[in-house]
Amino acid sequence: MNTNSPVIVREVGLRDGLQSIARTLPTEHKLEWLRGAYAAGLREIEVGSFVPARLLPQLADTAQLVALGKTLPGLLTSVLVPNLKGAQAALDSQADLMLLPLSASHAHSLANLHKTPDAVVAEIAKIRALRDSSGANCLIEVGLSTAFGCTLQGRVEESEVLRLLQAALDAGADRVGLADTVGYADPLQVSRLFEKGFKLAGERLACGHFHDTRGLGMANVFAAWQVGVRRFDACLAGIGGCPHAPGASGNVVTEDLAYLFASMDVATGLDFDALIALRARLAQWLIGETLHGTLWRAGLPKTMKDLV
Amino acid sequence: MNTNSPVIVREVGLRDGLQSIARTLPTEHKLEWLRGAYAAGLREIEVGSFVPARLLPQLADTAQLVALGKTLPGLLTSVLVPNLKGAQAALDSQADLMLLPLSASHAHSLANLHKTPDAVVAEIAKIRALRDSSGANCLIEVGLSTAFGCTLQGRVEESEVLRLLQAALDAGADRVGLADTVGYADPLQVSRLFEKGFKLAGERLACGHFHDTRGLGMANVFAAWQVGVRRFDACLAGIGGCPHAPGASGNVVTEDLAYLFASMDVATGLDFDALIALRARLAQWLIGETLHGTLWRAGLPKTMKDLV
Repeated sequence: MNTNSPVIVREVGLRDGLQSIARTLPTEHKLEWLRGAYAAGLREIEVGSFVPARLLPQLADTAQLVALGKTLPGLLTSVLVPNLKGAQAALDSQADLMLLPLSASHAHSLANLHKTPDAVVAEIAKIRALRDSSGANCLIEVGLSTAFGCTLQGRVEESEVLRLLQAALDAGADRVGLADTVGYADPLQVSRLFEKGFKLAGERLACGHFHDTRGLGMANVFAAWQVGVRRFDACLAGIGGCPHAPGASGNVVTEDLAYLFASMDVATGLDFDALIALRARLAQWLIGETLHGTLWRAGLPKTMKDLV
Repeated sequence: MNTNSPVIVREVGLRDGLQSIARTLPTEHKLEWLRGAYAAGLREIEVGSFVPARLLPQLADTAQLVALGKTLPGLLTSVLVPNLKGAQAALDSQADLMLLPLSASHAHSLANLHKTPDAVVAEIAKIRALRDSSGANCLIEVGLSTAFGCTLQGRVEESEVLRLLQAALDAGADRVGLADTVGYADPLQVSRLFEKGFKLAGERLACGHFHDTRGLGMANVFAAWQVGVRRFDACLAGIGGCPHAPGASGNVVTEDLAYLFASMDVATGLDFDALIALRARLAQWLIGETLHGTLWRAGLPKTMKDLV
């Protein structure tokens, strides 16, 4: 395991973060956020979701954000896509990557996408066919959500997660990732499931998505990194939370994650000062929302000059 | 490495936590805290410090707390002791363990104890002689503070930490521990320094003391546990903070630490509901102070029934 290879942080606040915040952030603020995240060194950003605007008015301006993302050199612009119709919209927008959620929990899949996991796999195959016939080079990434447990059904069997991981690859996913959607994972479980996942998917298993709902976000990221994960989702100020735990943290905090890796001399390309400045703007836009994170308050240690 | 062996959590809120809180908690509340912590399954508790009352009026009732601790069957009652005079008071109180801080940072040692680290080592030898001549069986534990960096001098060399660890053992410490007093440690540094420490001290290296100032507390605990640490300091609600970072978290949070280990099926003997109930009482006593932690808000996951 090369501990010196760089780590990619994908900022998902504009989608996973805002999705569970009631107020609609004006498009101009989102565009400023996107520009600021890019300026801070982020080179993968999830900018929104192609779901019907009536379901998520918060993300109705996704195409505008993709359009800005396409003008930023070297940026990989991700969008979430729940079905074939959304995939067509993503292709039309010329997004670089579409993230397709696939719940490992049967109950969560029915509640969230109104389909069984296997029906979602069938949809993934259709989306792959659509992508290929369109001639676009938009990457297809499948995010295995509730891979470490589910608030609805509780336990999710590892064998089922791995079966669906293989099914997603067979259906044509370019990449897959494992997501602790509800903050149930522990570090040993993370090591074990990613190790098994790597045996199936090799380098195509390419994302760890962790929530800090119960304080284990950073420990889980560290455990995943130890077994070879080099790409993580994170959210500025940890916004988003968990609808089942009011006030609890959502995704791991981008600026804290940047600090974790910097502290271990692992390159992320991120500029700490720029992230903290952007966090301050975000805090103004989202007054009243619970923000998370530690580093904005504590500052860098005297032993560390910068993060780049 | 036996990953099934139990972990001991030592509650240090009554000393390390309260020490940096301005208001003086009434003795009756401290006694209730001590009883509640014992009832929640904690079997090692640091109840105070034998420093001059004029310096730390907050901890002037330490002897009363030790007296209660001695009545609780199976409880190991710890006190902090900064010098020979404090050691005599600790022996007089019949505490079970005295924790002697030894700063690995020269600058921190001078600022905190007005002595060089080597002068502190000489004091440890005197304390050992005093303990032996008294016939008491009070354990002597030396906590290597600022072992991972220092807010005053910045970097602390590992070679100096290990030299002082050996010196503490040579001076008669029964046990030693490594403390990230200011929240500078990262998980790789933790693994490395504890592995080196175990080579010198074997089982006598018996405590990890981590602060969550920059969000890495749980990751550092996990890293230390991975290399064999089975005893950790923690603080209910993470009270105490860091005088250099207002509002920042202090010690790792007892109830979150209990959850980390429970989530990995590692026994701690702690009762989650009792910890959370005690935290709620603490929150009433300390209204206005910044409390920390995640689990009190998010609750246990559906996949976990209890923590015992």
